[in-house]
Amino acid sequence: MLTLPKGYRYAAGYAGIRKVERDDVGLIVSERAAEAAGAFTTNVVQAAPVKLARKHLEQTGGKAQAIVVNAGNANCATRTGAAAARETVKAAAKALGIPASRVLPASTGVIGVEMEAARIVKILPELAKGLSPDRFEDVARAMMTTDTVIKTASQEVELAGGVVRVAGMTKGSGMIHPNMATTLGFVMTDASIEAKHLRPMLRAGVERSYNRLTVDGDMSTNDTMVLMANGASGVTPSRAERDVVAELVGWVMEDLAEQIARDGEGARKLIVVRVLGARDEAAAVRIARAIGNSPLVKTAVAGSDPNWGRILSAAGASGVEFDPRKVDIDLQRVAVCRGGVAAEFSEAEMKKKLDAEECRIRFTIRGGGTGQARFWSCDLTEKYIEINASYRT
Amino acid sequence: MLTLPKGYRYAAGYAGIRKVERDDVGLIVSERAAEAAGAFTTNVVQAAPVKLARKHLEQTGGKAQAIVVNAGNANCATRTGAAAARETVKAAAKALGIPASRVLPASTGVIGVEMEAARIVKILPELAKGLSPDRFEDVARAMMTTDTVIKTASQEVELAGGVVRVAGMTKGSGMIHPNMATTLGFVMTDASIEAKHLRPMLRAGVERSYNRLTVDGDMSTNDTMVLMANGASGVTPSRAERDVVAELVGWVMEDLAEQIARDGEGARKLIVVRVLGARDEAAAVRIARAIGNSPLVKTAVAGSDPNWGRILSAAGASGVEFDPRKVDIDLQRVAVCRGGVAAEFSEAEMKKKLDAEECRIRFTIRGGGTGQARFWSCDLTEKYIEINASYRT
Repeated sequence: MLTLPKGYRYAAGYAGIRKVERDDVGLIVSERAAEAAGAFTTNVVQAAPVKLARKHLEQTGGKAQAIVVNAGNANCATRTGAAAARETVKAAAKALGIPASRVLPASTGVIGVEMEAARIVKILPELAKGLSPDRFEDVARAMMTTDTVIKTASQEVELAGGVVRVAGMTKGSGMIHPNMATTLGFVMTDASIEAKHLRPMLRAGVERSYNRLTVDGDMSTNDTMVLMANGASGVTPSRAERDVVAELVGWVMEDLAEQIARDGEGARKLIVVRVLGARDEAAAVRIARAIGNSPLVKTAVAGSDPNWGRILSAAGASGVEFDPRKVDIDLQRVAVCRGGVAAEFSEAEMKKKLDAEECRIRFTIRGGGTGQARFWSCDLTEKYIEINASYRT
Repeated sequence: MLTLPKGYRYAAGYAGIRKVERDDVGLIVSERAAEAAGAFTTNVVQAAPVKLARKHLEQTGGKAQAIVVNAGNANCATRTGAAAARETVKAAAKALGIPASRVLPASTGVIGVEMEAARIVKILPELAKGLSPDRFEDVARAMMTTDTVIKTASQEVELAGGVVRVAGMTKGSGMIHPNMATTLGFVMTDASIEAKHLRPMLRAGVERSYNRLTVDGDMSTNDTMVLMANGASGVTPSRAERDVVAELVGWVMEDLAEQIARDGEGARKLIVVRVLGARDEAAAVRIARAIGNSPLVKTAVAGSDPNWGRILSAAGASGVEFDPRKVDIDLQRVAVCRGGVAAEFSEAEMKKKLDAEECRIRFTIRGGGTGQARFWSCDLTEKYIEINASYRT
């Protein structure tokens, strides 16, 4: 059961951007202008909506009141992309009666195909009329691409001034790369927090969640993560309480990130990598990422093969120095490697344990430093190929 | 038809290291001590034979007379690995009547399983007896793992002093990563060249071939590339002629690298990426590698989908700065993207062209620098998963 923050309304509808008739446009609206922070793709190829959303946040100094999101077309590498994003935003602003600069656009889908903004423009008045506090999941569903399930998460906490809530939604199961604010994600809170405090909160949240996630090592042109705070709870967290809200935001983002990995394109299994005993956190993340990104590790997990040698090899190729003779590896909490060589374990039993829906890999450097990290990935199956070899057809 | 260098003999046999009864040990022997240079994996986890081969080359100051190679077991991350490599080398030295330090070991196969050196030791006398100048391909076959074809290449050239020949063999179709001397490769020449001149020749050759190759982005613990020059042609190239031999060595290595990509695990298509107009060569290589490594590009090629947006996105995520509006992309020599947006092309015709066995991707930055690079990759198919999900079983 989701606990939704107060003062937000949602709507979704089908504009005909995607071929199959399934909602492809979503609208998130705050009843008042909210404080807002954004994190965007670091790809040098950036979609038009990414550029426009960033520009709006700069113009307003961190205010936003609506997000208009579409699936089916990334509006990237197109002739008319900038105009299409502007028209969409303008139409949303008009339908909602707010300044265009308070509307943040986001798109996901195929790259390099001109987007027919008119289709979205046409249904926006209707969407504005259909806005409801209960349609949170409809927006999460409208922005799905190859996702098989919607991805939402929420948290609440009682502060001195009352209860505040945080809820988020995200999409994505392919083109997921750890090194950035990946995919689309929108997190809303009803706490009252200034944009200047939201920004570090968003950065820290992304660092511990979306930046520790991989499905296929590919980096999107459209990644957008927005954090909004509209103050509708009437609660302004104290300085110390802001850390609590930041923690909640982090939890929601971790929850969303894990859901993305679990729904990775073609994935049957979630992989959770934990690295302990690295020199520092950065080194731990590098090792964890190398393990989580390795196609050989991911296929071994798909085949329930306790092939820990591939884990060791992937870690060894991460660029982090360590002594292989001090490495312990556990799979599903069973010791499979001790001191860099095979531990005694039953291969048949391990295979059975690896048939589970979650694969837990622990990589420990004995007597190393205090650096540790968690990282999410998924197994790599024939289905990934099937999905991606025919994405557009 | 291969042109083999003079003064080398070859043998192969089945020692029982791999389960299926197919030759798994190969022996390459020069009739006299040859000058030699080696390039090895940069993985911090290094197999015992890698460490021993490197040590031998240091001890001898770059002399080698024999290579003993096995498939089926990488002899890496094992308790008894160092001893196993030493015993194998000692037995080969004894069978050949040469010092152990002139024998270079190399292993490929599964990681983390103890290697029974006794099996190899047992058949070495027989292999030594069976050495023949004609069994070059037998060794290439013995070191195959998931390879579907043997990989060999050769070149010859007439210098002032006479003809010299260069021939090489390699293996590998998985765990192939561009950033190093990848997999196993042995290149022999009968020119007379000192080790100190062989080293830069090997480095340059690897840089233009094996370092520009990817199958799955994984980096092996056992990568070994050896270049030997035994002088059996009686020809000592002049300083200028050494550049000619270096070029031949580069050609042979490029040829071998391309064969690896073509035989990439599960691959149906070779991908050749060319980048033009980058700031410098390093930037061109980074872009080419990002394109060649992208699972989304590789799956699109598998599905004959002219999805150039993925190519643009992968390049944009390479970390190299460029203006997307100046990018032209050609697939199979057809313009699919001009100035960062779609060119006019027939999707149906492109699909047909992409059904070919080779996919040529050209990525040009208009008005950019003079940096250019070629890079080899392959498509990513369901078969890759099938092979790797059950490699050990």
